[in-house]
Parts: sequence; C-alpha cells; structure tokens
Amino acid sequence: MPSNSPGVDAYRCIVTKRELRSFTDHPIEEPVLMKILHAGRMTGSSRNRQPWHFVVVRERSRLRELAAFGRFAQHVATAAVAIALVIEDTGAAFDAGRCAQNIMLAAWSWGVASCPATMHHGPEARALLSIPPDKALAIVISLGYPHPRGRGAIERTALRILASRGRRPLASMVSWERYGPSIPVPH
Amino acid sequence: MPSNSPGVDAYRCIVTKRELRSFTDHPIEEPVLMKILHAGRMTGSSRNRQPWHFVVVRERSRLRELAAFGRFAQHVATAAVAIALVIEDTGAAFDAGRCAQNIMLAAWSWGVASCPATMHHGPEARALLSIPPDKALAIVISLGYPHPRGRGAIERTALRILASRGRRPLASMVSWERYGPSIPVPH
Repeated sequence: MPSNSPGVDAYRCIVTKRELRSFTDHPIEEPVLMKILHAGRMTGSSRNRQPWHFVVVRERSRLRELAAFGRFAQHVATAAVAIALVIEDTGAAFDAGRCAQNIMLAAWSWGVASCPATMHHGPEARALLSIPPDKALAIVISLGYPHPRGRGAIERTALRILASRGRRPLASMVSWERYGPSIPVPH
Repeated sequence: MPSNSPGVDAYRCIVTKRELRSFTDHPIEEPVLMKILHAGRMTGSSRNRQPWHFVVVRERSRLRELAAFGRFAQHVATAAVAIALVIEDTGAAFDAGRCAQNIMLAAWSWGVASCPATMHHGPEARALLSIPPDKALAIVISLGYPHPRGRGAIERTALRILASRGRRPLASMVSWERYGPSIPVPH
C-alpha cells in the first residue's frame, strides 16, 4: 500500500492520461483513495467557491445500478470506486471539469485508471445517491486499477498510448493572437 | 530553455497548483509553450469530441485590452501569454474545465504559473479575438513565470502553499454511498 508519492513525472502523467474502462478487481487502498479525494478538494475554482461534493460509491450493487443510468456507463459496474461529482448548480460545470481532471490525474499518478460517465438517466441516478434537488450531478468517475496493475502501469500504458493516435493535430486547434484555424503554428 | 520534462512529481504538482496573478516579465520559451498546448490537446473529452480551439495571445497591447474585459482579469495584462479557450458550445463547459486544468497543470510542471479569467464583457473579448458567432469563449488563462522563477519555484511555492489554508476540510465535501454532508469519513 503506497504511503508516499510514487514519483510519476507530472507532464508525463498529464499527457498519457486516457479514459480506461476495464479494471482489475483489486480494491483501491484507503490512503490512495484519500489522496485522490484530496486532489479534488485542492482544485481551484471561481472565487474559490469549491462548489462540489464527492459521493464515493463502493458497494457493488450500487455501482451496478449506477452503470445502468448512463448509455456508455457500463464501466461503472466493475469499477473499484465511483466518485459522483455533485455541484452547486450547472453553472459550475467548468469548475467541475477542473476538479474531475485533478481527481483523474491524481489517480493516474498512483497507477489508478479512470473514466468519466454521464448519467443520461439523471433523476434515477440522483435518487440512488440521494442528491438534493438544489444540487446538480456533474459526472460520475469510475476508478480502478488497470491491466496490468502496479507502479509500472503508467509507463507500460504510456508506451502503448504514445504510439496511438486519437487527437486532432495541434496545428488544427491553435491560432495566434486571434481566432483563425488556418494560421499555421509559428516557429 | 528546457527540452525535457523537469521531473516534477505529478501528485505534488496537482495539489500545489494555485492561481497566481503576478508574473515576471520573462517570456515563456517556445518549446515550453508548445508542451503546454500539447497537454491541452491531449485532454480527454466526451465522445472524444475535442471541442476546443486555443487562441494564443502574446502581443502586450492585446493582453492589456483583454484584461479590461473581465472584472477580475487584471493579471492578463502582465501575463507572458494568455490562452483563450474557445469551445464548440456552452455544453462543452465541463470538458473545457478538464482542458484548462491540463493546461495549467502542465504549465505548473514546467514552473509556469497561471490563473483563469472570466471575460465578463464577452462580446468585446470575442470581437478582439475574432471568435466566430457559433463558438463560445470558455475562459482566458494567464500564463507566466512566478516570483521566484525557475526549476525550484514549485518546491518553494509549495512550502508556502501547503502551510496555508483556503480549502474546506475534506470531511465537509465527502460522503459515502449516498449524498449526506453529515456522514463522517470512515477509517
């Protein structure tokens, strides 16, 4: 059970993070889970509102129920943990994205894979989690150890990921001084 | 000019990242800027839509103009670079938050500080940046080297930050299996 940071390089952690939907049945150790939650807690937010609440779900039956409430949420059923990210209102969606990214990157830094799941059947998901009517459910994040598990997981997965495609070229999404997709990246 | 990752620990990078609003006049080296943009590019998004475009602003006069379009955006005027995060529509706000966090964490991993700024005068900001009417401006991110600058900046800033308060206690924002602020963290 790790008690100190595994020493993963920050930039490598960020650029290799992918949504993984297949998890081993190994539980997430309590200290690791607390560190993941702490990373969510420390996220910056507009006017430092910290407009979030984390519902941590570990009961298998409840995870299976949640998984049925999203069209692409099957991975929640086999997650070791799901974190439902509850926010003050839908206007906090941007801050929720920052918080979710912190949670998923912190998890990845500890070798824990993750995937966000939208709950398309929102009322049913909210009822299952007893979310008050004045709060919004931003996302549900699946968490679990990937195959293969362990301290080398990021490096091994990274080699596979870095060789893969799946993102538009940088030049297609960057422009300089003003919007204009056709302006090339200067060097 | 760094060409390799500075080897900052991922978890430490995540939990020490703060919005800093004061920057030195040192420019951000081109390879570092490209790495920061690449981190934004690699962000996961719903159905891999990658619903973003980055407008990179470095002209001082333009930075000053942008700074006037947000009520708390003064820091944009002195930033080395501002990245305007343009998205397909406001429904992509959650993904924009993920992307902004990747950008700011990657920057921090290279010793570059950042702060998001809301453009309260949206139409004026959009006009300055030539943002098309069918796109949304999610946020403007200021970037620049903090005082003190350099490879040790994160560690030095971290010591100061870790000693500070500014976030609600974890127990106040976590509940287990269902929403309920009064349920204590189990151990």
